[in-house]
Amino acid sequence: VAVPEDDASLGGALMAWRQGLIVPILVGDAGRIHEVARGLGETLDGLEIVDVAEHVAAAGRTVALVNEGRAAAIMKGHLHTGDLLAQVTKRDGGLRGTRRLSHVFVMDVPGLPHPLLVSDAGINISPDLEAKVDIVQNAIDMARAIGMAQPRVGVLSAVETVNTKIPSTVDAAVLSKMAERGQIKGGIVDGPLAMDNAIDLQAAQTKGIVSLVAGKAQVLVAPNLEAGNMMAKELTFIAHAAAAGLVLGARVPIMLTSRADDEKSRLVSCALAQLYDVWKRTGRSPVRMHEEER
Amino acid sequence: VAVPEDDASLGGALMAWRQGLIVPILVGDAGRIHEVARGLGETLDGLEIVDVAEHVAAAGRTVALVNEGRAAAIMKGHLHTGDLLAQVTKRDGGLRGTRRLSHVFVMDVPGLPHPLLVSDAGINISPDLEAKVDIVQNAIDMARAIGMAQPRVGVLSAVETVNTKIPSTVDAAVLSKMAERGQIKGGIVDGPLAMDNAIDLQAAQTKGIVSLVAGKAQVLVAPNLEAGNMMAKELTFIAHAAAAGLVLGARVPIMLTSRADDEKSRLVSCALAQLYDVWKRTGRSPVRMHEEER
Repeated sequence: VAVPEDDASLGGALMAWRQGLIVPILVGDAGRIHEVARGLGETLDGLEIVDVAEHVAAAGRTVALVNEGRAAAIMKGHLHTGDLLAQVTKRDGGLRGTRRLSHVFVMDVPGLPHPLLVSDAGINISPDLEAKVDIVQNAIDMARAIGMAQPRVGVLSAVETVNTKIPSTVDAAVLSKMAERGQIKGGIVDGPLAMDNAIDLQAAQTKGIVSLVAGKAQVLVAPNLEAGNMMAKELTFIAHAAAAGLVLGARVPIMLTSRADDEKSRLVSCALAQLYDVWKRTGRSPVRMHEEER
Repeated sequence: VAVPEDDASLGGALMAWRQGLIVPILVGDAGRIHEVARGLGETLDGLEIVDVAEHVAAAGRTVALVNEGRAAAIMKGHLHTGDLLAQVTKRDGGLRGTRRLSHVFVMDVPGLPHPLLVSDAGINISPDLEAKVDIVQNAIDMARAIGMAQPRVGVLSAVETVNTKIPSTVDAAVLSKMAERGQIKGGIVDGPLAMDNAIDLQAAQTKGIVSLVAGKAQVLVAPNLEAGNMMAKELTFIAHAAAAGLVLGARVPIMLTSRADDEKSRLVSCALAQLYDVWKRTGRSPVRMHEEER
């Protein structure tokens, strides 16, 4: 846990610990961490604290703990996301994998019979086609980790037809083909789709779309950060979805919980990191999801 | 009504007529229009039909009816939106006003105490700053036409702070200032805002945003077409909002009803066109909305 120096981040880490989801190593200013713990009425007995006062140095030390094989995931505390991710992505001593980093939300949407994954609502601002390949693959991996055997991925745009004036429709078509050719693995990818015909079967049928994904997408890939972010926040604040997320693409999953997240969201982020870790090591998800094939 | 040659478009026009909302002039292939009417069990007694067989010519004739002062609004029938709008925007004999065309949705969102306007979810793909000025002004005009005295406009992005790497946040800041300086008139404009802190007062307070708009926006301006379109469709298909829309910016309002629209949506589009027309001619909205100032 990088810089667990406020109530939310230290409290969240300790809560996940008591629930048996993680064993936190607290990396930050030890005096400050103890002070926050006292304020929370918590003791830190039995927990390792790595005393590093400065934020960037603490982020670097957190990354080093992973490289030393002592940590299997990273949780963001009270520091700027950019400061943490800069340490993760640095060429020398970072945690770069073969892919770009992207953020994946896993959402429980009232009325939907399955989890809905949304990406990228957090990191990539205007992803080009190569970045979108990684965004899609990271999201598929997350879906598989939570038990979706062949996740149905809808690549979204404003319309469901290719329109050369709307570049995101062209990207979507290319991503679909890349999945057909095995260049993206593990899921059924179809796009362009519009929001309605991605998630609503009747809307898909009205448009006469022949697709294994349309109307029943489990993963929604946004054309850009604004669209992804607005979609995720709308699901949360208007459709009352519960959401938790992870950053994937590095060698270990990263939990970017924010102060606005509630306790459940923090716990679910830890659970997602656990599931992803097990899936990555064993190729199997501990969750066997009840697949509702409509 | 340009090319009312399928059940949905002719039926919609006739329904609005019987409700007293419009007096349609049917511009299209007269034989085909009568045939569709027979299929619907309708007669066209008392209605003017302008017999033009070809779609583009029919769209041109529809536009000419406005220029001749015989029509005060345009309704799209069974032709491509692009074919209709090309006639509207043509330099010679079109209906160009002083602004770019943009689409405005008016939505009734369950749980929100006021209508929510969303723009642009239909026309401008990647609007630059100048186009966004017109998008905001058109949306404010629509809001005023339906009775909002000083509509609160949130200009959306992925975050609520200016980030030079996210150009839509910079545009949003500039649009806010232009409204303060009177370069955009009639509404209170604030941005950048994220989706959550635009519409959810608690989310706005958590972030400590001091704003007359945050948490209670009545108009949401999207950063690009994909984001706007996904936002509107999500509101419709997940949050179960009722929606109707207009294209503004030309000399008369344009109703772009699609086959997927239900009867209520078609009727409300006509009502919006009426309200806008009255507001534009008189400067007053026939609707006096109950303003809930939180």
